[in-house]
Amino acid sequence: MLKVGLIGFGYWGPQLFRNFSASSEFELVAVADQSEARRADIRKLFSGRVVASALEIVEDKSIDAVAIATPVASHFELARRAILAGKHVLVEKPMCATVAQGEELVELAARQGVVLMVDHTFLFTGAVQRISEIVRDGDLGRLCYYDSMRVNLGLFQPDVNALWDLAPHDLSIIDYLIDDEPIQIEASGYCHVNQHLPDIVYLTLHYASPMVAHLNLSWMSPVKVRRVAIGGTNQMVVWDDLNREETVKVYNSGIQVQPEDQRTVIIPGYRIGDVSSPRLANREALASVIEHFANVINGKEKSIMSGERGLRIVRILEASQKVLDDNLKHAREIQTSGLAR
Amino acid sequence: MLKVGLIGFGYWGPQLFRNFSASSEFELVAVADQSEARRADIRKLFSGRVVASALEIVEDKSIDAVAIATPVASHFELARRAILAGKHVLVEKPMCATVAQGEELVELAARQGVVLMVDHTFLFTGAVQRISEIVRDGDLGRLCYYDSMRVNLGLFQPDVNALWDLAPHDLSIIDYLIDDEPIQIEASGYCHVNQHLPDIVYLTLHYASPMVAHLNLSWMSPVKVRRVAIGGTNQMVVWDDLNREETVKVYNSGIQVQPEDQRTVIIPGYRIGDVSSPRLANREALASVIEHFANVINGKEKSIMSGERGLRIVRILEASQKVLDDNLKHAREIQTSGLAR
Amino acid sequence: MLKVGLIGFGYWGPQLFRNFSASSEFELVAVADQSEARRADIRKLFSGRVVASALEIVEDKSIDAVAIATPVASHFELARRAILAGKHVLVEKPMCATVAQGEELVELAARQGVVLMVDHTFLFTGAVQRISEIVRDGDLGRLCYYDSMRVNLGLFQPDVNALWDLAPHDLSIIDYLIDDEPIQIEASGYCHVNQHLPDIVYLTLHYASPMVAHLNLSWMSPVKVRRVAIGGTNQMVVWDDLNREETVKVYNSGIQVQPEDQRTVIIPGYRIGDVSSPRLANREALASVIEHFANVINGKEKSIMSGERGLRIVRILEASQKVLDDNLKHAREIQTSGLAR
Amino acid sequence: MLKVGLIGFGYWGPQLFRNFSASSEFELVAVADQSEARRADIRKLFSGRVVASALEIVEDKSIDAVAIATPVASHFELARRAILAGKHVLVEKPMCATVAQGEELVELAARQGVVLMVDHTFLFTGAVQRISEIVRDGDLGRLCYYDSMRVNLGLFQPDVNALWDLAPHDLSIIDYLIDDEPIQIEASGYCHVNQHLPDIVYLTLHYASPMVAHLNLSWMSPVKVRRVAIGGTNQMVVWDDLNREETVKVYNSGIQVQPEDQRTVIIPGYRIGDVSSPRLANREALASVIEHFANVINGKEKSIMSGERGLRIVRILEASQKVLDDNLKHAREIQTSGLAR
Repeated sequence: MLKVGLIGFGYWGPQLFRNFSASSEFELVAVADQSEARRADIRKLFSGRVVASALEIVEDKSIDAVAIATPVASHFELARRAILAGKHVLVEKPMCATVAQGEELVELAARQGVVLMVDHTFLFTGAVQRISEIVRDGDLGRLCYYDSMRVNLGLFQPDVNALWDLAPHDLSIIDYLIDDEPIQIEASGYCHVNQHLPDIVYLTLHYASPMVAHLNLSWMSPVKVRRVAIGGTNQMVVWDDLNREETVKVYNSGIQVQPEDQRTVIIPGYRIGDVSSPRLANREALASVIEHFANVINGKEKSIMSGERGLRIVRILEASQKVLDDNLKHAREIQTSGLAR
Repeated sequence: MLKVGLIGFGYWGPQLFRNFSASSEFELVAVADQSEARRADIRKLFSGRVVASALEIVEDKSIDAVAIATPVASHFELARRAILAGKHVLVEKPMCATVAQGEELVELAARQGVVLMVDHTFLFTGAVQRISEIVRDGDLGRLCYYDSMRVNLGLFQPDVNALWDLAPHDLSIIDYLIDDEPIQIEASGYCHVNQHLPDIVYLTLHYASPMVAHLNLSWMSPVKVRRVAIGGTNQMVVWDDLNREETVKVYNSGIQVQPEDQRTVIIPGYRIGDVSSPRLANREALASVIEHFANVINGKEKSIMSGERGLRIVRILEASQKVLDDNLKHAREIQTSGLAR
Repeated sequence: MLKVGLIGFGYWGPQLFRNFSASSEFELVAVADQSEARRADIRKLFSGRVVASALEIVEDKSIDAVAIATPVASHFELARRAILAGKHVLVEKPMCATVAQGEELVELAARQGVVLMVDHTFLFTGAVQRISEIVRDGDLGRLCYYDSMRVNLGLFQPDVNALWDLAPHDLSIIDYLIDDEPIQIEASGYCHVNQHLPDIVYLTLHYASPMVAHLNLSWMSPVKVRRVAIGGTNQMVVWDDLNREETVKVYNSGIQVQPEDQRTVIIPGYRIGDVSSPRLANREALASVIEHFANVINGKEKSIMSGERGLRIVRILEASQKVLDDNLKHAREIQTSGLAR
Repeated sequence: MLKVGLIGFGYWGPQLFRNFSASSEFELVAVADQSEARRADIRKLFSGRVVASALEIVEDKSIDAVAIATPVASHFELARRAILAGKHVLVEKPMCATVAQGEELVELAARQGVVLMVDHTFLFTGAVQRISEIVRDGDLGRLCYYDSMRVNLGLFQPDVNALWDLAPHDLSIIDYLIDDEPIQIEASGYCHVNQHLPDIVYLTLHYASPMVAHLNLSWMSPVKVRRVAIGGTNQMVVWDDLNREETVKVYNSGIQVQPEDQRTVIIPGYRIGDVSSPRLANREALASVIEHFANVINGKEKSIMSGERGLRIVRILEASQKVLDDNLKHAREIQTSGLAR
């Protein structure tokens, strides 16, 4: 059994706690959180060590691995120290706050010979696993687009905006589905609530494949939507994560290419071709993440959530943020100058 | 009774034919279409004059008004001649192909003292009429965003792309709902089927209000979606045009502004507040358009589909097209040069 | 071309008119309706004979076939005379008001050598045709139940109740899908609006197969529902006629038979197995009915809407009405006597 | 704090365990289960007494109240002994297996001066609480019908059928909403899987109000449905328990009573009037049950889940079972004799 310590018991920490406790591969030996109230909560559930300082876990020689579920700003420093102390690391997404940090962590983990894994949990959902099979089997044909609407209400945080909060889900899924990186990034958004934090972000990524990805991200929608459409030349998949009965639907309809020289007006029907909704595995995704972490440590599996993948996600986030900032600045200037058109 | 002539009997012409025939304000006296087959079809239904040349209608002194339902490229010339001949004009959307054309038509109609109206039919749907009431009553609070997903399969035409085909619906609705024009336009897209015609277009419009509008337009989706979300500080409206039972839903939930100095993580529920779905008037929108056309001619109503509005839509389309072209050209260059990132 | 006359131009008559007009097998030569206003309406659309008396059509020697779309009470007499005059007859459902009438019509048509067909239009919908294929292919396994919810608001008529108005749809579909007649009938209902006309009816039919059919019929529901579930030992079909995109869904789940000697509590998930939604033919069903009528007359097809089938439906309706009346009478007696239990 | 013991740790027991543990009114002091494996499970979570025999709890003088979550067959004996030992009792639904048992328990509890409560959990859901308010406020007008479809797959148990498993939910809700008992009961069903246990049951209850209730209960449906429609003369409520976003919808449409002397054919639209979906309280219903149990014991609230209510439910179940048995027997005789019609 691998001895694991958990750092951070806020929103996601308790989920990791529950799953590490149920794991047959790990023995959870210590939990750290800066908040005294939270430590009291942990003690009700946990007979192991409960500490205030993450360093007590990071520097504990008896611990093989750590899971880091703290705010993003602290990921780098905690992961760096844990790796330097020879520990395997499972860090929450996004892996860190900058590309430079990410490059250092990946290099360090390689040098130390430890596993650096980023908890992009969605990759292990029944939906993404099934969609991945469909893509790899070639059923969709050549991929044309990935279109995501990921909107809901709330979750305003001082240290993260809608881009860094919501985009990592889609970016990790795209990175998992296709072996390609964006060649051009367009990003715009809006700050309705907090001047400095975009709460609506539109992201368009062009890939050489060629493929286009579009993300509609918002904290401003009273209706929660989690809808991803993936279109290929043969078929299209729609993944509605809030539809419990038919989460993934496969539309057996391709894109009809018409000869260019003849004017054609087709009044489109509601759909063409059959629709099917495959049954999905319903194991909790985080349980699979933790099992995968153990298997990668033990050399039984190749990581699908490697530091390299995590770094690619951070690279796109950083580049997108730069475009977004430029556009927001430009919009503010126009608005201030009062010049329309 | 106003004597009206109809030019064009392709996709939309028969709808105009049916509604002009049923109108108590208009007498439909002539129909023109270049296709002999279509003229034969018309003659089965229509005992009036059926002609090949639009000019026979445009120059007929006994005719008071013409309706133009031909391809966009011919709108300008036909409308210009009709206006010069002193006729009132109802032209299909988009009004014309360029801003210069639109400016000339608007000026000419003013000089000739005739009505120039653009058939932005959607404005007279029960849904848009109801949403307009909600917006004007101030129920939504300050408008924050207009978010439209308007995607379906097909309808590839040689002379129009997804932008000019699909955006006019949303642009006319926004122009009707708010008294403001965009101060900044972002547009990207993709040409999957036809090298020269974007079949997927993402449009982001910034308004001084401040408000942001986002349009996700596509001819590449086997699933048809017609979903518009309009968010204000107090409430949000979702208009799903394919949901016959609850076409418009009002979410009685505002955007919760949190004090910036305290970290808050809210796990969002599915929604907050009641939802209601108002009953909509179910008169055919085009019947209302035609009645409105008569009322504007007779001085009983002020036009909500004036040439000025039509011109503003064309102005946004032209500006968007320019941004879109630049971006598509840039993406092709990167793709050709093979430089990633 | 077969010369056909149409009797009745109320609710369904205009549909028959439109489809006979478009048919390449029939020439519509005359239309009869007692109402002068309706005859005026017909004359706007129709250049043939328009008459007040149905007898003018029934006795016209030049007419080969008649379609009867009048109130049920008149079906028998009109159909009888038409058959006696040697005409083929297409009569609206239900075929007639009593079993005795139905038996006489069937016998008469056989003797006269003419086609007697009942317009159970639903049999030619894309949905029922597809379900019929699924049933005949044996995909469902042995049929266990047919469960229909057919409720909406309104349609109160003085001469027909919810049973005779709504049940014929399901009864004709069941009769088409399985080659069996009910061995036991249970029926209960309620008269909320009109003392003498049940507006809510629950019908349970037991078949020897063994199979059970259950119909929940109501004129008292503001929400319209048209949902039929057909369950077999291997699969289940749900037909939601108001769902335009996925009208028919096939659930690839059988009924798990557990050994009786072991206590098993299964917490059921939302479903087991894949779901698929086949694409349906979208030809107007009534056009197929009329083509079928011609083909049966011409000996090219065997009737799926024969007088025998129509008679079996009337037989079940009559039997159900008797049970329903007894139950309603009994309930009133209890209510009047004020004795509870 | 009231000292409570829990008997039975199968399907529902763990829910009671979790909620009693979280309660500030009760101290959970002992849990009993006959299964050694389950006792081992309990010990992982619970530091109190874990025993094999329910009698150890029932006869423990230090315990104030017991919760009974065992198979129905044992409810009576356990509840009887607990009441005789002066304990308050919360028993799972249905309260017991026969009316005679129920009458004895109610009488005994009254004599002993203890609280006898039946855990009809649904009464404390946000949905039923909200519907109850709507009914009591008179918004619906006079109640006309209660129509429930409660179907799913599985859950075959040797000691209970679909009637006793599924009907108590609806029967307790009806008993809570209206102050009336059925004056006539019709019940039919089918045994597809197990000869002796109906797995499909149709129940129709007539009330003097007058109102009719109809329950469509099934263990044979791969699609889970939990839909209740409650129709009044002014409005109608639809409660879809699987729709997380709009669980309860209120249709602002009444039943249009037409004068009987004029034939009226209305082609019904999809609905008339606005629809609204009230926000529901989302507290776990069982937490409210347990708080209510404490409040009733402490005399702070009047019970809405009294033994009297539980007894009325059992009385309807027993009467329905008798009708069902007669009908099933009759159907088998017909089937055996081979006589159709």
